[in-house]
Amino acid sequence: MIKQAVFVAAGLGSRLKEKTVSMPKGFLELNGIAIVEWSVQKLLACGIEKIIIGTGHCAQAYNELAKKYPAIQTVYSAEYETTGSMATLSVCAPYVTEDFILLESDLIYDSIGLSVLCNDIHENVILASGATNSGDEVYLEPQPSPKGEGSPLEAANDSFLKALSKNKAELSSTYGELVGITKISPALLSAMCEYYEKKRAEFPKLDYERAIMACTDKHQVFIRKIEYYAWREIDDDSHLEMAKREILPRILENESLKNIRREVLLNPGPATTSDSVKYAQVCADICPREKEFGDVMKWICKELTSIAAGLAEYETVFFGGSGTAADEVMISSCVPENGHILIVDNGSYGQRLAKIASVYKINHTVFKSSTYERIDISALENEFKTGKYTHLGIVYHETTTGLLNPLDIICPLAKKYNIVTIVDAVSIYAGMPMNLSKLGIDFMASTSNKNIQGMAGIGFVICKKSELEKTKNIPMRNYYLNLYDQYDHFSKTGQTRFTPPVQSLYALRQAILETKQETVEKRWQRYTECWRILVDAVKRFNLKMLVKEEDQSHLITAIFDPQSPKYSFEDLHDLARQHGFTIYPGKLGNINTFRIANIGDIKPHEMKRFTEVLKGYLDSIK
Amino acid sequence: MIKQAVFVAAGLGSRLKEKTVSMPKGFLELNGIAIVEWSVQKLLACGIEKIIIGTGHCAQAYNELAKKYPAIQTVYSAEYETTGSMATLSVCAPYVTEDFILLESDLIYDSIGLSVLCNDIHENVILASGATNSGDEVYLEPQPSPKGEGSPLEAANDSFLKALSKNKAELSSTYGELVGITKISPALLSAMCEYYEKKRAEFPKLDYERAIMACTDKHQVFIRKIEYYAWREIDDDSHLEMAKREILPRILENESLKNIRREVLLNPGPATTSDSVKYAQVCADICPREKEFGDVMKWICKELTSIAAGLAEYETVFFGGSGTAADEVMISSCVPENGHILIVDNGSYGQRLAKIASVYKINHTVFKSSTYERIDISALENEFKTGKYTHLGIVYHETTTGLLNPLDIICPLAKKYNIVTIVDAVSIYAGMPMNLSKLGIDFMASTSNKNIQGMAGIGFVICKKSELEKTKNIPMRNYYLNLYDQYDHFSKTGQTRFTPPVQSLYALRQAILETKQETVEKRWQRYTECWRILVDAVKRFNLKMLVKEEDQSHLITAIFDPQSPKYSFEDLHDLARQHGFTIYPGKLGNINTFRIANIGDIKPHEMKRFTEVLKGYLDSIK
Repeated sequence: MIKQAVFVAAGLGSRLKEKTVSMPKGFLELNGIAIVEWSVQKLLACGIEKIIIGTGHCAQAYNELAKKYPAIQTVYSAEYETTGSMATLSVCAPYVTEDFILLESDLIYDSIGLSVLCNDIHENVILASGATNSGDEVYLEPQPSPKGEGSPLEAANDSFLKALSKNKAELSSTYGELVGITKISPALLSAMCEYYEKKRAEFPKLDYERAIMACTDKHQVFIRKIEYYAWREIDDDSHLEMAKREILPRILENESLKNIRREVLLNPGPATTSDSVKYAQVCADICPREKEFGDVMKWICKELTSIAAGLAEYETVFFGGSGTAADEVMISSCVPENGHILIVDNGSYGQRLAKIASVYKINHTVFKSSTYERIDISALENEFKTGKYTHLGIVYHETTTGLLNPLDIICPLAKKYNIVTIVDAVSIYAGMPMNLSKLGIDFMASTSNKNIQGMAGIGFVICKKSELEKTKNIPMRNYYLNLYDQYDHFSKTGQTRFTPPVQSLYALRQAILETKQETVEKRWQRYTECWRILVDAVKRFNLKMLVKEEDQSHLITAIFDPQSPKYSFEDLHDLARQHGFTIYPGKLGNINTFRIANIGDIKPHEMKRFTEVLKGYLDSIK
Repeated sequence: MIKQAVFVAAGLGSRLKEKTVSMPKGFLELNGIAIVEWSVQKLLACGIEKIIIGTGHCAQAYNELAKKYPAIQTVYSAEYETTGSMATLSVCAPYVTEDFILLESDLIYDSIGLSVLCNDIHENVILASGATNSGDEVYLEPQPSPKGEGSPLEAANDSFLKALSKNKAELSSTYGELVGITKISPALLSAMCEYYEKKRAEFPKLDYERAIMACTDKHQVFIRKIEYYAWREIDDDSHLEMAKREILPRILENESLKNIRREVLLNPGPATTSDSVKYAQVCADICPREKEFGDVMKWICKELTSIAAGLAEYETVFFGGSGTAADEVMISSCVPENGHILIVDNGSYGQRLAKIASVYKINHTVFKSSTYERIDISALENEFKTGKYTHLGIVYHETTTGLLNPLDIICPLAKKYNIVTIVDAVSIYAGMPMNLSKLGIDFMASTSNKNIQGMAGIGFVICKKSELEKTKNIPMRNYYLNLYDQYDHFSKTGQTRFTPPVQSLYALRQAILETKQETVEKRWQRYTECWRILVDAVKRFNLKMLVKEEDQSHLITAIFDPQSPKYSFEDLHDLARQHGFTIYPGKLGNINTFRIANIGDIKPHEMKRFTEVLKGYLDSIK
């Protein structure tokens, strides 16, 4: 799995002429976006975690870009005016910790080239294309490959790099043209840097590709040629204009053919996902007991924790299963035999916590509260005061109604009475900024398929470590869903006790990367903006909402059924579906509502379009 | 989701000249495979369940093809000599039950066209390309689209079909050329057939595309144009030769760029999967409570059952979770409070069943047996005879060692003593033919990621319905993993109780389709062939196996560590990994073995290559 990329982007771009003064050539624009930014977006969609940009000329432009993309780290090559791309790569090298993709900053290319490189079994791979007739070709000379020994390498169309040159006459044969995108191992990078150190005085302007060529005796570099590859190097505006006419349409069409039909899910999860999260599921088969996969799982746990808590204090434990599975993990694993849990029921999900407790015959008391009105805190505190309870079980955001329970008040209060807090945060985590430590939450469950915007299949619990340790000696009430056993085994081995859902975890990894890119703060703003559009429309259409606006989560809105004998949820549902929206019925026995969620990868303009569909329907039943 | 396809393939192919006599034109060959067979393979990889071929001229060739592909159903158009493609489509129409892809039989094309059609939001879609200059073009004339009402249709580059013709002069404008691949709804199909009935006397040779054109007033047909689409219609050998030079290389390259790096997993699951199973995970987001998805889940349950049992007698219930989760479902849900389960332990997985029973404090007795020798049946029968036991828990195939327990003897024996049989068949189901009814198995657990060759994330239990009904009143011991509740809710609603792993289910659907294509019998033969290659090599290399050959499953082989001080499992593992193979350590505390599994989408030549890697390693430690 390739997680890092490096741009060599320090150059003067002298062919840019008058523009040279004000910007690096990666900032030539394509449909209003700098070509290097297109490239960054393709890398992020491909699962790259860290993008190092070696800057020099007009470095400020890249520093600005880095503010927009937290994955970017810029490294300044102070001597850029007198050196070449290998010098830039050298200054980036200390920040590269594993296999990486090296790119030139002035390329437009079909993103398939990235996935082909990432997928290639060889460690070092230079991407090549068929003839471009661009006038600026760098030709590659292959060497016959050594005989494999029954290795899969044999199967590939194997040509390894011998030499490269802009001058065909220097080469005895050619196999493709250099694109400027290369997969490089740390070993080859070290060798290249060493070579440059030796040659620096003599050839300060050495290109990285010359350094690769110098190292091929000890480090084989595979040539991966895509004969019909759509790409172009852009050195100036006229290149760009030409590329826009001839190359860009092919790139845009090829990439668009992979787009997945857009269905906007306005049901309260699973939520709409990005195409890049969907495609992250497609990867080489791997045994999840391999260390490589263990590292992916550890990274996921660390990042899931970081979204809501500090790593020193909290830890994430995940399970193959749904959000309910994670709820069951908490209730069944965290309450000791002599414990007593007070469970707040103000909706289906609170009821579910109580149901789980009752199945396990855990000593529990249900605190019943309105499904749509704010909980009575002092009544709840009176319960706490009885001293009977060791644990509190509560839903942060009742998916049934969109009611947000004020845990910022309730949990600190519980802590005052030394009550351990167990929170179902399934439909709020990663959708609203939260700090578990500040909130006083000890255990919190959520799932991969809601606000974190991944695929269904993973439930997880974020645990306060000190409280988790205390569950160690609670006799197991089940096996698969036991929290401490799962945590302990994974901590000790880097493997899960049972086969985890491998592909859903890869998707979750991508979803986390995209969450980090967006940030939970901005996601919350986007969700809120979508919710605001909905609520404004609902009021304009004279519909009534179940929960007072100030008590709503901004994520799910329960709306009373329209007052018309012609109203049918099924009709509204089917109409919405025709327009690409999926909506969901209410879940309260005695009150007739339908629900609109605005979680997932949805955009304000989509919610606006939905409100128009809703209006069309309401007009039709008047 | 598109599940059906129709070929109109009855034509004489008169341009084939001398070949006309002996074969339909779809049987022109490309790299030794008929072009229609390429097309069939692309459809199957795309998730098509049923392929209807309307035959006429040389129908026998298609009937032969149908023997190789169980998904194919041929329908004979008796009047093919005097009619055209619309007549052929008419005879196929009664067998079409939902949206389908209509194809001409003489096309070579990039499979991206199929996924683009399947993904398109419009019901009726005609695939078009940019200029082919083939000399045989059918041009399409668009009509301006009606104004959408905030629908996603707006976003698309929307052109609907107005007319089509080989003669440009007949059209007022053109937008692309007809490829010969079209997505059609049942409503449009009916309209086309009705139109043909009316026109039949006058125009018996009517083309299907003319019928589409005649129906566009009531049925909008979207033109989906791929400007740079690689495809060609092949009417004769010279077309084929030309296409081979100019078009085929592009098709093959485009398709190969999507190939995922081949990693052969020789660990005992998750198993190696096909690329088409991997890509089946990538699909439009859907709320799993939609009926459309309920139908997918019902189909999956039905097909999983059919693999091992009759639908009248058995039923499948699935869970988001691993194989162990499914084991826990059985143990915790099927043994009543006054029951007593005898659990056979001859390996880690038998031990696990006992562990689960003990966690739930279920009355159980462990029958300990050798981990590598055949179980003592008479000793086991003596236990049965005591009359103490209501249930038997046993592993069919001990993944620890590759030991196959003789359930064909044990389970019928248990039934003789009225003992309910609970079987962990996790690593044998779908790898070896079995008949649960004949074997006397009441409950059987397995998972999506072993021999069925899907992705991890789903555990399932195949239940004898009469026994399942008896579990109805057993008090729940857990919530998420309760068998009867899960079964009952799904039967009544077509929805799962909790969010299921949607994408893993789509992958499982594709894996089932591929299992049906291969058949379990042939899969068992392929597995056995791979195992035979391994075992022969192991003997040749003077390695020893833990289990006697006749007691082995043919699926997993435990091999004693080589007798060399230089031996290191890690070294062997790392070497194998470099060559694209993943192997797995042993799992017996006191005996040093490593394990080679040969389950999943692996080929005999790959196992042969692995034995060469193994030999290389053994030579190096001599």
